[in-house]
Amino acid sequence: MTLLSSIHTPRDLKALTLVELEELAAEMRQTIIDVMAVNGGHLGSNLGTVEMMVALHRVFNSPEDKFIFDVSHQSYPHKLLTGRAAKFAQIRRYKGLCGFSCPAESPHDHFYAGHAGTAISSALGLAKNRDLSGRSEYVLPIIGDATLSCGMALEALNNLPKALKRFILVLNDNRMSISYNVGAIAQILSSGTFSKPAATFFEQFNLKYVGPIDGHDIMKMIEALEDCKDSTRPILLHLITVKGKGMESATQNPISWHGCKPFDKVTGKMLEGGSNKPTFPKIFGRHLLKMAENDPSLVAITPATPYGSCLTEMMQKFPDRCFDVGIAEEHAVTFSGGLAYGKKMKVVCAIYATFFQRALDNLFQDVCLPGFPVVFTLDRGGLSAEDGSTHHGIYDISFLNTMPNMVICQPRDGHLLKELLESAFSWGRPTAIRYPNMATEERDAPIERRELGKGEILTHGSDIALIALGHMTRTAFAVRDLLAEAGISASVIDPIFLKPLDAELFYEVFTSHKCAVTIEEHSVSGGLGMIMNSFVVRNGFRIPLFNFGIPDAFVEQGTYPELINEIGLDAASIARTLIKQYNMELAPIL
Amino acid sequence: MTLLSSIHTPRDLKALTLVELEELAAEMRQTIIDVMAVNGGHLGSNLGTVEMMVALHRVFNSPEDKFIFDVSHQSYPHKLLTGRAAKFAQIRRYKGLCGFSCPAESPHDHFYAGHAGTAISSALGLAKNRDLSGRSEYVLPIIGDATLSCGMALEALNNLPKALKRFILVLNDNRMSISYNVGAIAQILSSGTFSKPAATFFEQFNLKYVGPIDGHDIMKMIEALEDCKDSTRPILLHLITVKGKGMESATQNPISWHGCKPFDKVTGKMLEGGSNKPTFPKIFGRHLLKMAENDPSLVAITPATPYGSCLTEMMQKFPDRCFDVGIAEEHAVTFSGGLAYGKKMKVVCAIYATFFQRALDNLFQDVCLPGFPVVFTLDRGGLSAEDGSTHHGIYDISFLNTMPNMVICQPRDGHLLKELLESAFSWGRPTAIRYPNMATEERDAPIERRELGKGEILTHGSDIALIALGHMTRTAFAVRDLLAEAGISASVIDPIFLKPLDAELFYEVFTSHKCAVTIEEHSVSGGLGMIMNSFVVRNGFRIPLFNFGIPDAFVEQGTYPELINEIGLDAASIARTLIKQYNMELAPIL
Repeated sequence: MTLLSSIHTPRDLKALTLVELEELAAEMRQTIIDVMAVNGGHLGSNLGTVEMMVALHRVFNSPEDKFIFDVSHQSYPHKLLTGRAAKFAQIRRYKGLCGFSCPAESPHDHFYAGHAGTAISSALGLAKNRDLSGRSEYVLPIIGDATLSCGMALEALNNLPKALKRFILVLNDNRMSISYNVGAIAQILSSGTFSKPAATFFEQFNLKYVGPIDGHDIMKMIEALEDCKDSTRPILLHLITVKGKGMESATQNPISWHGCKPFDKVTGKMLEGGSNKPTFPKIFGRHLLKMAENDPSLVAITPATPYGSCLTEMMQKFPDRCFDVGIAEEHAVTFSGGLAYGKKMKVVCAIYATFFQRALDNLFQDVCLPGFPVVFTLDRGGLSAEDGSTHHGIYDISFLNTMPNMVICQPRDGHLLKELLESAFSWGRPTAIRYPNMATEERDAPIERRELGKGEILTHGSDIALIALGHMTRTAFAVRDLLAEAGISASVIDPIFLKPLDAELFYEVFTSHKCAVTIEEHSVSGGLGMIMNSFVVRNGFRIPLFNFGIPDAFVEQGTYPELINEIGLDAASIARTLIKQYNMELAPIL
Repeated sequence: MTLLSSIHTPRDLKALTLVELEELAAEMRQTIIDVMAVNGGHLGSNLGTVEMMVALHRVFNSPEDKFIFDVSHQSYPHKLLTGRAAKFAQIRRYKGLCGFSCPAESPHDHFYAGHAGTAISSALGLAKNRDLSGRSEYVLPIIGDATLSCGMALEALNNLPKALKRFILVLNDNRMSISYNVGAIAQILSSGTFSKPAATFFEQFNLKYVGPIDGHDIMKMIEALEDCKDSTRPILLHLITVKGKGMESATQNPISWHGCKPFDKVTGKMLEGGSNKPTFPKIFGRHLLKMAENDPSLVAITPATPYGSCLTEMMQKFPDRCFDVGIAEEHAVTFSGGLAYGKKMKVVCAIYATFFQRALDNLFQDVCLPGFPVVFTLDRGGLSAEDGSTHHGIYDISFLNTMPNMVICQPRDGHLLKELLESAFSWGRPTAIRYPNMATEERDAPIERRELGKGEILTHGSDIALIALGHMTRTAFAVRDLLAEAGISASVIDPIFLKPLDAELFYEVFTSHKCAVTIEEHSVSGGLGMIMNSFVVRNGFRIPLFNFGIPDAFVEQGTYPELINEIGLDAASIARTLIKQYNMELAPIL
C-alpha cells in the first residue's frame, strides 16, 4: 500500500505530516517516470512540479479553490492528487486520461489548455464571475516562465485590477520553454540575486511579488501560500523549479525530454519507434538546412518549436538566419512579413497547424494583403493523436482558403515535400505547406520544380475518383484495392494544391468518372471536401461526391490508428461505405 | 500658393526654416480639418500627429528610411508630406487615397496596418532584413500608447535585441485609444512627473528611453531625433501629443471625434446622415442595456470599442458588468470564457468581425472546446466601406463553421437582432451573431423566442430560390422583383442560421425550385455559398446553385453602393446574371 494509493481526493493530504508529504512527492515522481517510460509524454515539466502541486493541494481546497493551468501538460501531479492515480497508467491513451487539463474528466479541471498563455485570462474571468456571484473561493492560475513570451498572457496582466482578492498567480519558473527561453522577460526573471527585476516587472502590473521560493521545498511553499491568503491585492508567487527534477537524463537534456517517447528506465534512453523511415518534419528540417547552405537569403522563423519543427541544426549553423521568437505566434507571422519585405529574403515560417490558429489575422493583414511570399510550413497538420483535442491541426484550411492569392498545398510524401519547398518561392505568393508528424517515404529521385496549382492522377480507374489530400493518398490506394475486390475501378488523384485548384485536372476527373470522393485529415466543415463540393456546384457538374474527413465534433486522444478507426477514416471503413453507396444510390442514376 | 502645395517629396522639407515648418504644420492641420469636414474620417489622431510627422520627415529620408505606422489611421500628415497632398481630398473615397497606410499607393507606405499592434513586429522583421542585406537605413515604427495594450506588440518588445541599431520606436502618447485607455501599462505611461515608470518599463525591453517630449514642439523633436541617430541600442522616443489638437470640439470630445462623420466647420457639429433609422449596432447596444437592466447575470466585454459597439451607456450604468479590456482581442475572448464558467453568467462579447480574426484560437480552445455559451456579437460583419481592405469583416464564417457546436446566425433586421439576442442563451452553445454597421428596420412587434437552427421562407415563388444572408434579404427582394419582370418566379429564403443549418427547410427548398442562389456579404471562399454547396452535394441534390458574394480578391475603400456595384452584389447585377444563366443553362435541363 503506497501513500499515493491512499489519496482519493486532495483533502486526504490535509492529514499528512511533512515527512509523509515528501514521501508522497517521491512516489508521485516515480509513478510519473514509470508511466512515461511506457506511454511517453510530457516528462520534464511534470517532474518539476510535483512538490508544487503537493503544497498547493495541501493549502487550498480543490475543486472549490481553482487551479488553472497554462498549457497544462504539467498537470500530471495534479491528476495524481485528484482521484486519477488509478487511471494514470492510461494517460494519453485512447479512452484514458487526457495529457492536458480536461474538464470532461474531472471537476478539478476547469478549462482546456493546450495552447499557452490563456490561464491568466481564464482565471481573471473566473474571478470576476466569482465576485459578481458573491462566492469567495481562491483562484490560482499556474503559469510557466515561457508563458510570459506570449502576448495574450501580457494582455491579461495588463488587465489585472489592483484590488483583486484571492487571486494568486503561481509562476513555475524552470527557465525553459519547450526549448530554451528567449526574450527580454526571460532575462528579467533570471537576472538579479534577489530577483529585484522580476519583482519590479510584476509590480508594474498591480501584482504583489512574493519570492523567489524553491519550488521543491514543500514546507517553504506551504508557508508562503498561507501568507498569501489574506492579501487584498493579486499576488505573483515566484517558484524556482528544475525541469526533469529527479531524473538525471531529463535534467541534463531538458529539451529532448520535454515530451519523451517511451524509454528504458535503467539506461535512461528513449526507445526507437517502429519505423525506420524519416518523418515529414525531419525531412523538412534536413532539406531546409541544405537549402540554407546554398542560399544565404533563406531565413527561418519558429515560435518556440525549433526542436519539434526540426530547426535546431539550422539554428546552430546559421544563428543569424534562424529565429526562435518564443511562444509568440502573432509576432512570428508579422515578423516574417517584415523579413519578406522587398522580396529579397526567402522567408520560411515553421509553425504547428494548431498554433497557426493564433496568427490568422497576422496572415491576413501582414502577409497576404501586401502579398509577401512567406512560406508557412504547417507542421502537425492533421490529428495530433496522443495530445488530443487541443492539438489537432484540422481547422487551418478553412481560413487559409478565404485569403486571396494564398497558395495551400500538401505533399503526399517526403520527396514531394522537398519539391514543394524548393518550388514555393518561384510562385511569389504567400504559401502554406501542410504536413503531418508522420513517417513517410523519401524517393531517391531528382527534385523537380513543381508548377503552381498542378495536381496529379496517381492511378487511373473508371468508376470512382478518389481525391485524397497529402498522406491520405496512401489510404486512397488501400481503398482502391478494396474497391477492386468488389469489382469497382477507382482512380487515385492527388490535388497537391487546395488553392489554386487544378481546374483542368478536375474538369477531366469529373467528366470521366461516375462518382467522386474526397479523403482528408481535416475537418469536413472547412477543408478539401468543402472546396471540391463548391468546385462541382460552381462548374455545374452533376457527379455524386462523397466527403470523408474529420467529423464536425471534438476528437479526443488515442493512437493514430485508434482515432482514424473511430472516425471512420481507415481504408476499410471508407471502402465499405463507398461500396454500399455505389451499389445503392448510383445504380438508379447510372 | 501654399507651403503645402510646394511639398512634392519629403526632401522639400529640408530647405524650410523652423518658422516655415510651423506654418506648414498649420496648413496641414487646416487641410485635414477641411477634408474631414467633407469626407469624414479619423480626425483626432491625425490632428495630434502633424508636428511629429513634420519633424520625422525633416530629420529622416523617406522612403529609404522607413516609417512604419501602427493602426495607421493616423498617417494623414505622412500622406500630405509624401506627394499625396493634391489627392488628399479623395481620402477614404472610391479609387482615391486609402485612409490607412497603403503600399500600393506610395513607396513611402511599407505595410498595411488597420489592426493595431503590428508595427514593432513588421519593423523588427524589416530591420533584420536590412542588417542581413547589408543596408543601413533607419527603421522607425510609430505606435500609439493604446498599442501597448495589445499582446502582439508586447511579444515584439520581448524580442527586441539589445544591439539593434538605427531602430527608433516612436511612441505617440495621446493617452487615448479609440476610447479611454485601460490597464496597467496606460497607468505606467501617465504616472510620474519625469516619467520614470515609463523609462523603467521600456528599459526592461532593451530600449533606451528618450523623453517625454512635447509632440507639438517641432524643434525639440528635431533635436531629439538627431540625438537618437547614433545609438547602438534600439530607442524608445516618448512624445506627448494631444488628440484633436487645434480643433476645440475634437480635443474636448476625443472619443466621438476619433472617427468623425462630415461636420460643419463653423459650429463644429457633425452632420446627420441621410437615414433616420437606427443601425444594427445601435439597436444591439440599446437592447442589450435593456436586457442588462432586467438580468443582473448579464455581462458584456469589448476590446477597446465600447463606442463603436454602442456599449458606452451600459458601461456607465453597470460599470461592474461591462468590461473594456483594451485592444486585446485574444484576452477578451478567453476572459469571456472564464466569465461564462459554470454557465451562471450570461456573457456577451461584442467584437468587430475583422478584429475577431485575432481571437479565433481563443474561440476554439477557451470557448468552443469547453462548450461555454458565450454570445459573440460580430459587429461590422460585411464590407467596411470607407475603411477599406484591412477592415472588411468578410472572412469570419469560414473558421466559425469549422468549430463543432458553434451557432452562427445573422439577423436581417433590427427586430430579428433583438430576437436572436434574447434567444441565444437558451441555446446553451457558443454563438456568433453577425451584423453590419448599417441602418435597419425596427418593427413594432413582440419579441419572440427564436428556435435554434430555424430559417424562414420570406416569400414563395416557384422557379428560383434566393437564399440570402441577413440584410442581403433586402437585395434578394429587389432581385425577385427584377426576375418577376422577366417572367421568373422567385422565393426569398432567410436561413437565419448558418450553423446549424435548417435541413428540413432546405430539403423543401431544393425539391421545390428549379434553381437556387446564395447571396451574402462575405467572401465566397468560405461563407454561406460554400456551406450551401456542401449541403446540396452531401444530400445528393442535383439543383443548379449560384453563389453571389465578395469575390476572392482584396476589396479597397469606397462608399457602400460603390463597392457593392464594383463586385456585382447589387440587385441589378445579380438579376442580370441570373436571367442570363436561367435562360441559357437551365433551358436544356428543365
